[in-house]
Amino acid sequence: MPVSPFDWTDDEARRRAGAGLVRSLRPRTAAPELLDLASNDYLGLSRHAQVTEAAVEAARHWGAGSTGSRLVTGSTTLHADLEDALARFCGFEAALVFSSGYAANLAALTALTGADSLIVSDAGNHASVVDGCRLSRATTAVVPHADPDAVRKALDGHRGRAVVVTDSVFSVDGDAAPLTALAEACRESGAALLADDAHGLGVLGEGGRGALAAAGLAGADDVVATLTLSKSLGSQGGAVLGPARVIDHLVNTARTFIFDTGLAPAAAGAALGALRLLRNEPERAGRARKVASELYERLTGAGLTAVRPDAAVVSVRAPSAPEAVRWAADCRAAGLAVGCFRPPSVPDGISRLRLTARADLTERQIVAAVATVVDTAPRTAS
Amino acid sequence: MPVSPFDWTDDEARRRAGAGLVRSLRPRTAAPELLDLASNDYLGLSRHAQVTEAAVEAARHWGAGSTGSRLVTGSTTLHADLEDALARFCGFEAALVFSSGYAANLAALTALTGADSLIVSDAGNHASVVDGCRLSRATTAVVPHADPDAVRKALDGHRGRAVVVTDSVFSVDGDAAPLTALAEACRESGAALLADDAHGLGVLGEGGRGALAAAGLAGADDVVATLTLSKSLGSQGGAVLGPARVIDHLVNTARTFIFDTGLAPAAAGAALGALRLLRNEPERAGRARKVASELYERLTGAGLTAVRPDAAVVSVRAPSAPEAVRWAADCRAAGLAVGCFRPPSVPDGISRLRLTARADLTERQIVAAVATVVDTAPRTAS
Repeated sequence: MPVSPFDWTDDEARRRAGAGLVRSLRPRTAAPELLDLASNDYLGLSRHAQVTEAAVEAARHWGAGSTGSRLVTGSTTLHADLEDALARFCGFEAALVFSSGYAANLAALTALTGADSLIVSDAGNHASVVDGCRLSRATTAVVPHADPDAVRKALDGHRGRAVVVTDSVFSVDGDAAPLTALAEACRESGAALLADDAHGLGVLGEGGRGALAAAGLAGADDVVATLTLSKSLGSQGGAVLGPARVIDHLVNTARTFIFDTGLAPAAAGAALGALRLLRNEPERAGRARKVASELYERLTGAGLTAVRPDAAVVSVRAPSAPEAVRWAADCRAAGLAVGCFRPPSVPDGISRLRLTARADLTERQIVAAVATVVDTAPRTAS
Repeated sequence: MPVSPFDWTDDEARRRAGAGLVRSLRPRTAAPELLDLASNDYLGLSRHAQVTEAAVEAARHWGAGSTGSRLVTGSTTLHADLEDALARFCGFEAALVFSSGYAANLAALTALTGADSLIVSDAGNHASVVDGCRLSRATTAVVPHADPDAVRKALDGHRGRAVVVTDSVFSVDGDAAPLTALAEACRESGAALLADDAHGLGVLGEGGRGALAAAGLAGADDVVATLTLSKSLGSQGGAVLGPARVIDHLVNTARTFIFDTGLAPAAAGAALGALRLLRNEPERAGRARKVASELYERLTGAGLTAVRPDAAVVSVRAPSAPEAVRWAADCRAAGLAVGCFRPPSVPDGISRLRLTARADLTERQIVAAVATVVDTAPRTAS
């Protein structure tokens, strides 16, 4: 048999199969066959008529695509309106929208650092932050999870620019970063704070204004936030928020902004529609937090080990990767979709189920979901 | 005045202003105030009713967002249908859709190489290819533009995996890569060929099946293509096409796939609608090439210096960056939108106007566009 330059992928596939770590796509239909506690649709807005109709209107008015880079033909007044609305809602001076949160993190980390910069990055940060550090020309110091003293030590003695980067809410365990203490550590040494608020927007802060607003850090001249439009806002895309001069700098230098096609009008319109809804119905954020706390109390009350939720993610420990997979599959068979995180997606090697506390879950759905998770739990999970 | 960690951005802004290299956003309205020869909407499909209504239908049926990673809740049967249709249309075994072409290139370059790999990359490749090389753990050899002998030399003597990566059509000058010769060079040494067909899809090959189909390389077991859905298909997103085992490997290992939210349903629906249209109206691709060739003939006939177009981009030389900016602004004032490329976006330091040969331009529009470009030309441009 002739040799192909991709023969090695078969060896890797066999290795994954042997380790029980095969990932495969399982396309879903539009009909909700399962109760969804697996998505990041924290406020249940992705199918809200006001959001989908905002997407519809934008596609009809502006077209299906933005037709080019934001610097050529891809900027519409719809993008500008969304950027104004995001900045105002979250309390920042300015905002810049990207085609994904991934692109927003790559942009912030590469454009705000140089070869003489130091990035201090939490060990639990999202893959897009890790890749942003790698793509930058800065030196990266990875520090233990949620440890402001470790950050202080890493910054100590560095000359030149420094950026401390952290998820505001960590995706896997749903725990919040110590933003106030991190900001203090930054200010002691003149470093900037960059926080990825993907899982805080819509859930934390007054009316869902995000973790930085909740910590009183939104709009500070040394703080930059990144966001996604694809979680609480039910759409697609990402954004960087910060001082106007930082945003202007990104427009001029961020490669994932300059060399990417602008966000599709439908996605921009949907995000704008979701922000409008959040302003009119500020109680949604608190409801998501309340659902999370109820899920946590019920699950731990039944003897399972879970992390006390700071936002809308409830993480339940599984004894091993194969048992986590079996557990999630049993939930699925019983009509419940839950996330299943295991190596190599989790840097700490701990497998867990990840439950999303959607704001629109009913009391009956919460009770049913908990019953399913508890009934299908491995014997050794509690 | 207190010191902020972003004070340095003001110095950079002053430096850009001094060098005449300030970029700023200029949001457009939905009404076409200008004749568009600046976008990448090569077939004029972004506002085609069949495309926008496919976006509308998808947003209503599936929601405004895909709600999660493709590996959790973000895969719908709509994504699967789009991947089948893309693979079949372009002649590959399988396809995988991303939220952008940028993400697709990062995925292919990082997931298909390791620390012992060599990437041989054309000096004119797109920023997303350059960033993919940087993000990978491979060694990258940058070779002179469109030079198969240089590729052969770079591959010579390398042990371990090798990938040769090239844009199939280069964005700035619109020239095509020597794909057949590159594939030969790859096969001599067992390297894989990765071609970014962002500007070839919809324009080159029978009915717009792309540069790899045109070169007889689509579906080969040593060839992988990346695409965007945001140019000829008028939507948003990107894709990787290749052997099924390569796609399976990406599903399992590509970080910009695993850790990104799935493409929004409206964008997937629009791209699928555009592919349907391309199958039913295969003459669109030839029309785009014919418009390009007519623009070139008329512009050079009037004494301007341009690059003979291989696809739907016509690049016209400008004497300097400030004159290119002035030229594009004068076109704009006369009702014509053209692209203006200048350092640092162009690695060779040559400034130029970039004209898009949209398939739906009328004869009258072509004549008017050429007249405007010629009338506003710097005296030293010819």
